[in-house]
Amino acid sequence: MIPRYSRPEMASLWSDVARYRRWRDVELAALEGMVAQGLAPKDALADCLARAGDFTEADAARIEEIERTTKHDVIAFLTFVEERVGPSARWLHLGMTSSDVLDTSLGLTLRDSVDLLLKGMDRVMAAVEKRAFEHKHTLQMGRSHGIHAEPITFGHKLAIWYDELRRGRTRLLHARDTIAVGKISGAVGTFAHLPPSVEEHVCQKLGLKPAPASSQVVQRDRHAEFFTAIALVGASLEKFAVEIRHLQRTEVREAEEPFTPGQKGSSAMPHKRNPILSENLTGLARLLRGYAVSAMEDVALWHERDISHSSVERVIGPDATVLLDFMLHRFAGLVENMRVYPEQMKKNLDLLGGVVNSQRLLLELARKGMDRQAAYVVVQRNAMRMFEEGVDFRQALLNDADLLKMMTPEEVSDCFSPGYHTRQMDAVFQRVFGRAS
Amino acid sequence: MIPRYSRPEMASLWSDVARYRRWRDVELAALEGMVAQGLAPKDALADCLARAGDFTEADAARIEEIERTTKHDVIAFLTFVEERVGPSARWLHLGMTSSDVLDTSLGLTLRDSVDLLLKGMDRVMAAVEKRAFEHKHTLQMGRSHGIHAEPITFGHKLAIWYDELRRGRTRLLHARDTIAVGKISGAVGTFAHLPPSVEEHVCQKLGLKPAPASSQVVQRDRHAEFFTAIALVGASLEKFAVEIRHLQRTEVREAEEPFTPGQKGSSAMPHKRNPILSENLTGLARLLRGYAVSAMEDVALWHERDISHSSVERVIGPDATVLLDFMLHRFAGLVENMRVYPEQMKKNLDLLGGVVNSQRLLLELARKGMDRQAAYVVVQRNAMRMFEEGVDFRQALLNDADLLKMMTPEEVSDCFSPGYHTRQMDAVFQRVFGRAS
Amino acid sequence: MIPRYSRPEMASLWSDVARYRRWRDVELAALEGMVAQGLAPKDALADCLARAGDFTEADAARIEEIERTTKHDVIAFLTFVEERVGPSARWLHLGMTSSDVLDTSLGLTLRDSVDLLLKGMDRVMAAVEKRAFEHKHTLQMGRSHGIHAEPITFGHKLAIWYDELRRGRTRLLHARDTIAVGKISGAVGTFAHLPPSVEEHVCQKLGLKPAPASSQVVQRDRHAEFFTAIALVGASLEKFAVEIRHLQRTEVREAEEPFTPGQKGSSAMPHKRNPILSENLTGLARLLRGYAVSAMEDVALWHERDISHSSVERVIGPDATVLLDFMLHRFAGLVENMRVYPEQMKKNLDLLGGVVNSQRLLLELARKGMDRQAAYVVVQRNAMRMFEEGVDFRQALLNDADLLKMMTPEEVSDCFSPGYHTRQMDAVFQRVFGRAS
Amino acid sequence: MIPRYSRPEMASLWSDVARYRRWRDVELAALEGMVAQGLAPKDALADCLARAGDFTEADAARIEEIERTTKHDVIAFLTFVEERVGPSARWLHLGMTSSDVLDTSLGLTLRDSVDLLLKGMDRVMAAVEKRAFEHKHTLQMGRSHGIHAEPITFGHKLAIWYDELRRGRTRLLHARDTIAVGKISGAVGTFAHLPPSVEEHVCQKLGLKPAPASSQVVQRDRHAEFFTAIALVGASLEKFAVEIRHLQRTEVREAEEPFTPGQKGSSAMPHKRNPILSENLTGLARLLRGYAVSAMEDVALWHERDISHSSVERVIGPDATVLLDFMLHRFAGLVENMRVYPEQMKKNLDLLGGVVNSQRLLLELARKGMDRQAAYVVVQRNAMRMFEEGVDFRQALLNDADLLKMMTPEEVSDCFSPGYHTRQMDAVFQRVFGRAS
Repeated sequence: MIPRYSRPEMASLWSDVARYRRWRDVELAALEGMVAQGLAPKDALADCLARAGDFTEADAARIEEIERTTKHDVIAFLTFVEERVGPSARWLHLGMTSSDVLDTSLGLTLRDSVDLLLKGMDRVMAAVEKRAFEHKHTLQMGRSHGIHAEPITFGHKLAIWYDELRRGRTRLLHARDTIAVGKISGAVGTFAHLPPSVEEHVCQKLGLKPAPASSQVVQRDRHAEFFTAIALVGASLEKFAVEIRHLQRTEVREAEEPFTPGQKGSSAMPHKRNPILSENLTGLARLLRGYAVSAMEDVALWHERDISHSSVERVIGPDATVLLDFMLHRFAGLVENMRVYPEQMKKNLDLLGGVVNSQRLLLELARKGMDRQAAYVVVQRNAMRMFEEGVDFRQALLNDADLLKMMTPEEVSDCFSPGYHTRQMDAVFQRVFGRAS
Repeated sequence: MIPRYSRPEMASLWSDVARYRRWRDVELAALEGMVAQGLAPKDALADCLARAGDFTEADAARIEEIERTTKHDVIAFLTFVEERVGPSARWLHLGMTSSDVLDTSLGLTLRDSVDLLLKGMDRVMAAVEKRAFEHKHTLQMGRSHGIHAEPITFGHKLAIWYDELRRGRTRLLHARDTIAVGKISGAVGTFAHLPPSVEEHVCQKLGLKPAPASSQVVQRDRHAEFFTAIALVGASLEKFAVEIRHLQRTEVREAEEPFTPGQKGSSAMPHKRNPILSENLTGLARLLRGYAVSAMEDVALWHERDISHSSVERVIGPDATVLLDFMLHRFAGLVENMRVYPEQMKKNLDLLGGVVNSQRLLLELARKGMDRQAAYVVVQRNAMRMFEEGVDFRQALLNDADLLKMMTPEEVSDCFSPGYHTRQMDAVFQRVFGRAS
Repeated sequence: MIPRYSRPEMASLWSDVARYRRWRDVELAALEGMVAQGLAPKDALADCLARAGDFTEADAARIEEIERTTKHDVIAFLTFVEERVGPSARWLHLGMTSSDVLDTSLGLTLRDSVDLLLKGMDRVMAAVEKRAFEHKHTLQMGRSHGIHAEPITFGHKLAIWYDELRRGRTRLLHARDTIAVGKISGAVGTFAHLPPSVEEHVCQKLGLKPAPASSQVVQRDRHAEFFTAIALVGASLEKFAVEIRHLQRTEVREAEEPFTPGQKGSSAMPHKRNPILSENLTGLARLLRGYAVSAMEDVALWHERDISHSSVERVIGPDATVLLDFMLHRFAGLVENMRVYPEQMKKNLDLLGGVVNSQRLLLELARKGMDRQAAYVVVQRNAMRMFEEGVDFRQALLNDADLLKMMTPEEVSDCFSPGYHTRQMDAVFQRVFGRAS
Repeated sequence: MIPRYSRPEMASLWSDVARYRRWRDVELAALEGMVAQGLAPKDALADCLARAGDFTEADAARIEEIERTTKHDVIAFLTFVEERVGPSARWLHLGMTSSDVLDTSLGLTLRDSVDLLLKGMDRVMAAVEKRAFEHKHTLQMGRSHGIHAEPITFGHKLAIWYDELRRGRTRLLHARDTIAVGKISGAVGTFAHLPPSVEEHVCQKLGLKPAPASSQVVQRDRHAEFFTAIALVGASLEKFAVEIRHLQRTEVREAEEPFTPGQKGSSAMPHKRNPILSENLTGLARLLRGYAVSAMEDVALWHERDISHSSVERVIGPDATVLLDFMLHRFAGLVENMRVYPEQMKKNLDLLGGVVNSQRLLLELARKGMDRQAAYVVVQRNAMRMFEEGVDFRQALLNDADLLKMMTPEEVSDCFSPGYHTRQMDAVFQRVFGRAS
């Protein structure tokens, strides 16, 4: 969990103190459940509730001190609680296994982390939606293979992003559903020492669902799904970031990241305004992919569990959620304040002297009965003249005898009219945003 | 697509012939849509429908021959269709871009592949369910860290698998939903040359949903989700396979893969019956994880698309689906015919002389008022005598004065009763299968 | 092994026939070794040598037919050889285990594949070297973050590639060294049935080194190193491919992939010349990374071996080597015929009105005693005037009173002289190529 | 960088203070180089050397404070140095770019980290060597597929580990060679503002080699090689850890991790001694693989660099080196104190009633002229009697009429003699350790 890329909201979910508080909540809820089943005395519960208290950083330090002897974190925690609560504490954890506490608590942390991620996602989506409508009709060159193709609008590009973000949101929701589970099923998941009703009580109280069946642990395919969902959202943010980096290229300059007054682009070259936020997002997405790989390897635990997943999760649990949270807010700020240069977009549109309209010409020729290959040859040879001789495309066409057999000069010129490429934007926006304006 | 690990049902979805047939279907459906909009003449459609014909391997070979000149697969296909259909063919593809055909067709292939995977999944789930009920009360040692913990039943283990498989099934369904889309939105996704209604017609006809917004292509986060879903199902199969490999170990021998009469385990050691199917599944799962990594890198295409995803998908599209399909059926057969050895399970249960019941003793002591640490010390020292001196655990306990202050010898013996660990199996099966028997 | 991306030279190394021939060579060499040790009769060897014969596709088919019964490939092979050779064949494989044959044979295949890769590498390096010298002084804009920085030469860029390729070559050589090993150490690697001298004989005969210690198999960290070396070379090719894609962008157009006469860029847009070879290479590199992940997971086999690595290697062995081989030759062809546009490079160099010389001004000011921050402010404000007002940078500077306190107008103009950026190219080329011209 | 898995020696290499000290060292060495070339005054150097001073945590905090305004770490650092040193500081960094400092400094950090890793490696290798000789003749069952195969010695297993560790060591040395480079070649690597001699001076002074050619940065294939080398060593450690986990299984119990007095295996089951160190190592290896994936994606930077690698390296630079360092020392301690149980090994050797000697019988039969298939059938049917009827293998053989036609009862019994499997250990140890005792 690298401070440079952490927001306190997310980082605090993963603090030692937060973890111990969750363990406390799970243990107390379980004791409640036992009392309800007559498996522990009411007084013990009352005592525990009264004395368990808050957990401070000093308490966390004390627990870690105990752990250095026990080499077992949950036992260290329980030892600490016994020191604090006194004899009634012996009813806590009775019939439970460490993983009952750890995995239920992890379910809570991951659920809360995904809720925070969803908030970040909402901010990103709101920003993208706003800019999309702002630029619904801002014409821009569409590019495939990095080569000019046909015009789009910048808002169309953003509508595609929005649609993709919604899929990411759905993935996070699915992952939330998968991960927000608890288990109090004991050492090997058989409920040998505590009936399922205790698990059900704990889960209901804490807002989780019981894992229908568990071994010593909640099965790790759930967590792998969680981390792949995170990596997929990261990959989408990377895509958007790469787009911005392209648009900010010196030769393109159609959009730019926000640039604050004091900021310096380069220690050597004062003129530089570099898309460093987007480059940063690009790199962070790579980390999320790496974490997904590790998480997928955690699935195949041995028998009723081995603990090899634990070290992985201690690292990627906080790292993946903290990074994606950071990415979402960094990207949201970027989109909110991104500078867009419609004149430069227009300038680039004209760069190829109209050759990007060749598809319209092909269509016209075809509809007038020319066969595809012949039409292709006619249009391509004039496009090639543009590329190789620098001849204006429309002019070249108007000098092509074969072409003029099929189309009048007016019809040729019509193929260069603007507006043709934006007329379906209402339909697209209606589909994506449920509204056209 | 390695023949050794391919089933013809899945492999045939990816054949050249199948691909060209899909392209034909997409082109014809699009022409229908155009005709419905008055964008092409009815006669042309009738002509194309009448003459497009089937596509054979010879046709596929001819198309590839053309491609060697055009270096463009869709143009080669269209050239071939024009050769076959004649002049009416020029109305095909009019206003479309290659990716309209390719991506809509890929949507069909992936949808069909996931439907096949779901069939495989159903077979696996049925097999696991059957064996789970068969062994619902078959006692087996539960193991955490590879070390004996407390008893489970073999059916409980299988119930956990079933529950995990259902999550895998859900992931495949989500992926199906994500991937079963088409796009006929043109060169940069703006519907400049054909209105959205053509896309809608094509998609409805072919059983897809239109991508709400697309660039030149369907966005690749969809495909990345698909391949990660596959990798996650693979990881679950790997987990089950690893379990079987453990159970088949010489020292454990609680279950075995089916072993056919002619089969030879080793060229050197004729006695060997090796869990080679499970080992094979373990390896194949690693491949699926690798493919997921490649797929996630495909998301960040440039601008309205670059074609870097194409080579990746040409390889992992068939490879990932064919391998998972093969894995599902291999695993289903394995489970259906797996040999289970309840007597050996029982023998292993007794291996530690009853020390696996220590948790019950701890609980008893705690409920009688001994504090946790004291109880832990009492139980652990007797467990250690078992490990280090080979003393029978129950006997050791009955000689422990501290213990006998808290429990009668009868109470101690009660902690070793069988049946205690199976009494919640009804509840677990009810949760997992919706029925207890 | 996808035919589209295969060269026959590499693909044929992985054919069934080639594999069986290698098995034959290993078995015969081992029998020779045994005879030399007096462990088998000379006549049997003579017989086997005389009758083992070549292996044709028909033979391979027959072996596979046998395998369908034995479910074990080496036993099937030996059965076939016995059918062909007769009784003497029983001396073959005596005391050996399947993996002695398989892993020694795999060592041969991987060694030969890496030798082919090195040939491809040599072709690539020769092409890059040639173009580097050709463009040693061709000025081009250097870009960091996609933003114009300071001038470089195109040859300098290629010299960096060459240096990186040499590191890739070294990695392949290291991997060759690691992988070109054999083992005839028997079922668990103890040489129980055949002395080390047989292994040494086989390895010497076949040009391998004996693995100093082996279990049933050669340890898989060797193979993982091999596949990561391949992925790293792939990543370098991807980097070069991405560079070409950038240079071919419509707005940049400084270089282009070769474009053959019949080739069509787009079914819709006849003017398009897309960097599809480079995009293809970009995607293929992703596959190689995925394979490296799978290979790294193969290392941790159980005990003296489990066979989970086998399915992985059956797929990625051919796939990774065939793809990299294809990539190397595709890239070599691309570089050999790449079109370079020095005039366009020059045009782009002037795009920012000289602002890319700001670092030189900073330096001049600093050397004349202005402090860094002050100099930075002076230069940046004039650069910003260029960006925001479109004022020519040199002109802006010549109107800046603070600047003129430190530098004469002549000194300012000197900072815009060409040639300054190329004067160290001799030194760089000397380092990289061992010659400056 | 997770404290739980960090050793201070490695963690301190990555502290802010250590980083700023390295930047200082690079800047001062560069100024020395400039002075040597007459590019800066001697006095300025003397001044800087005298006043640059040490860097404390307070200084680091001050630099970070400045960075919050400049949003550029190197500029913040230089601003701080100017505050401290005064006007002479303006000669520092003159003609350099941030990456000259950053990448040269990173080269130092990675070199030092690999030197620490090599120390850890040496400790591991010494421990493995010692235990290998200790158990050179300790017989143990060799297992393939988890199934008993033929006997090995535990020392043989460890010799294989040692040999693999040496390959890991070689990989780290190669990576060191690749990564221990510096660059002072300026903004785009052309040495435009400072001649190569300055770079050479800096590198010689700091113990690095100059990158023969660089762009703004040192090329990232070098770093990718470094992180894959780390992942490969991690994978080997994982393999050893998985082996220990297997040997510690309750049913196997041939070796155990050290278990300290206060340590508690389970909060629920006091008898448990779990291989938690090895499980931990298994998980950490997964993280290293994930980091390697991210690092390989960093290679393809744009043009003369983009900064997307930076966020990746800020995370995995410390994380990967700190984790491997931790793993090496954790594993070394584990091996040094691992408990080995030769009697249990012996007991397991006898588990299959001698059937593991079947290969020797096959050999005997073959050498006596029985054909392979016939011999196989004879031996297998007796092995199967052992498995299915529990008949002692040797006894079964002695009752097999077909067998007794080929071998005397004495010859049969000879095949069960111990010692046969250890006679080549001298040869193996000689190869691996260069000495047999």
